[in-house]
Amino acid sequence: MNKQRLLEVHERIKPYIHRTPVLTSQLLNNLCNAEVFFKCENFQKMGAFKMRGATNAILNLSEAKKSKGVVTHSSGNFAQALSLAAKSVGVKAYIVMPENVPQVKKEAVKFYGGIIIECAANAMAREVEAAKIQKETGATFIHPSNDDNVIYGQGTAAIELIENYPDLDYIFTPVGGGGLLAGTILAVNNFSNKCKVIAGEPMKADDAYRSLMSGKIENNDNTNTIADGLRTQLGDRNFPIIKKYIDRIIRVEEDEIINAMKFIWQYMKIIIEPSSAVAFAAVLSHKEVLKNKKIGVILSGGNVDLSNLPF
Amino acid sequence: MNKQRLLEVHERIKPYIHRTPVLTSQLLNNLCNAEVFFKCENFQKMGAFKMRGATNAILNLSEAKKSKGVVTHSSGNFAQALSLAAKSVGVKAYIVMPENVPQVKKEAVKFYGGIIIECAANAMAREVEAAKIQKETGATFIHPSNDDNVIYGQGTAAIELIENYPDLDYIFTPVGGGGLLAGTILAVNNFSNKCKVIAGEPMKADDAYRSLMSGKIENNDNTNTIADGLRTQLGDRNFPIIKKYIDRIIRVEEDEIINAMKFIWQYMKIIIEPSSAVAFAAVLSHKEVLKNKKIGVILSGGNVDLSNLPF
Repeated sequence: MNKQRLLEVHERIKPYIHRTPVLTSQLLNNLCNAEVFFKCENFQKMGAFKMRGATNAILNLSEAKKSKGVVTHSSGNFAQALSLAAKSVGVKAYIVMPENVPQVKKEAVKFYGGIIIECAANAMAREVEAAKIQKETGATFIHPSNDDNVIYGQGTAAIELIENYPDLDYIFTPVGGGGLLAGTILAVNNFSNKCKVIAGEPMKADDAYRSLMSGKIENNDNTNTIADGLRTQLGDRNFPIIKKYIDRIIRVEEDEIINAMKFIWQYMKIIIEPSSAVAFAAVLSHKEVLKNKKIGVILSGGNVDLSNLPF
Repeated sequence: MNKQRLLEVHERIKPYIHRTPVLTSQLLNNLCNAEVFFKCENFQKMGAFKMRGATNAILNLSEAKKSKGVVTHSSGNFAQALSLAAKSVGVKAYIVMPENVPQVKKEAVKFYGGIIIECAANAMAREVEAAKIQKETGATFIHPSNDDNVIYGQGTAAIELIENYPDLDYIFTPVGGGGLLAGTILAVNNFSNKCKVIAGEPMKADDAYRSLMSGKIENNDNTNTIADGLRTQLGDRNFPIIKKYIDRIIRVEEDEIINAMKFIWQYMKIIIEPSSAVAFAAVLSHKEVLKNKKIGVILSGGNVDLSNLPF
């Protein structure tokens, strides 16, 4: 199932991404009574795994389409990822962002060469604005998570992790829009014969958990979680993959997320964003079940506002 | 000059320490117009290079002395390093700490198995207390920085850095008690034929800079710097080495230290303590002179109080 495509995607994006290191910590292993292997996408270019999917989506465009640019709506890591990936291959990136987004996020996008178009702070406005830009410029719309090329790109992090550690029992990822989770599942299904995929999700934005329960895509009424990268919902390209193959989704409370983040900062001396801590929080909450297992954890990113930390 | 001894020290301590990675950042290279290679001792066991010197000092003791334990006075990284190094070889470590030291530092020492003896918060009291313990227990006193075995141990970080990058033009370290700086100088003199050693020092605790000027060991009247690991002064074992071979000491202001720390946290996604940032702040303050050079920077440690950050 799509093994060849995953390998091709990985080869295609390799010149544009970092092969991120896998780190371990004896202290955290002792804490979990297990062996935990952290795939450090916080060290990825622009600081998150999103660089993988964005790069793949752009490289898959025809030359004619590349010449007209790409457009997305995002105020988070995908905005930066698409900007940098586009710049790397000489393509224009139009980024639709709500006007009330913090200045620091706008500056990050500009830093990577993205062209910002501001819109009113609601879902309707951003879609209208993105459609307008598509029409005016001919740019191709690229969704941050519900796009096959993006999903396959995100799966390459797990390919590398399994290449390094072929005998993992589990891989944990966070779940927000579902791109990383679906890509990880595709990679695991094709490159491991015993590993299972588990996702961590904030209790306060547990749409993916509820979607698994109901069998259809649910959304969040309220997304007041510190894990700001996980406030989005699943889509029709990734949900079928997730529904069919995921082992389970573990929901975690805000204090568990902050604790997990603090453990990683303090003991591993690396900076991860709250969304990344969600996956490790899920491990910690189930450590009895996971005793003596080999566990991969994808640390999805490291972009945090240092002037606004939860400690 | 002592090349054989350095190699022996490195072999002796290898089983007890991490060979820490050397990281680079394209963004920080661009910022400096140079190639900067960060030796990440923040990833060392217990989070600082001090583990190297402490381990060497203990391993050099006779079995008779080992059986009676070791004692030091420190409220910082050396307290933790001596505790962990002692535990690794089954030796008792008595740590004299001022009674007003933050609870978090006491807990770290206990965590690594050190036996804490509290004393009044002044230099006289801690020396009296350490002498008392030596007399009562027969434990060997080990100074955090003014001890040949400690100095040689600290030098092994630079040996590894030069092994990885033999053509460095400069290695920057912070300077506090002088152990890391003197050890780095010994390593550079023996393993490189063109590299020069420069130290960064806080303007607010610039005793080493003034010592170089006057030719004798100076101390600080006031040490109100955020770089809490660098408040100590040089000693008669390390000062002669530093005085003879150092290229220069660059002093930096508090805001330069905080900026350098923030750059590394933000762009490299790793946690370093303010004392480590002093070395990189010195690089940044002289980037015109250092243009196109290959520069090693020893990131000395990563133990920070996350609830009390300067951002």
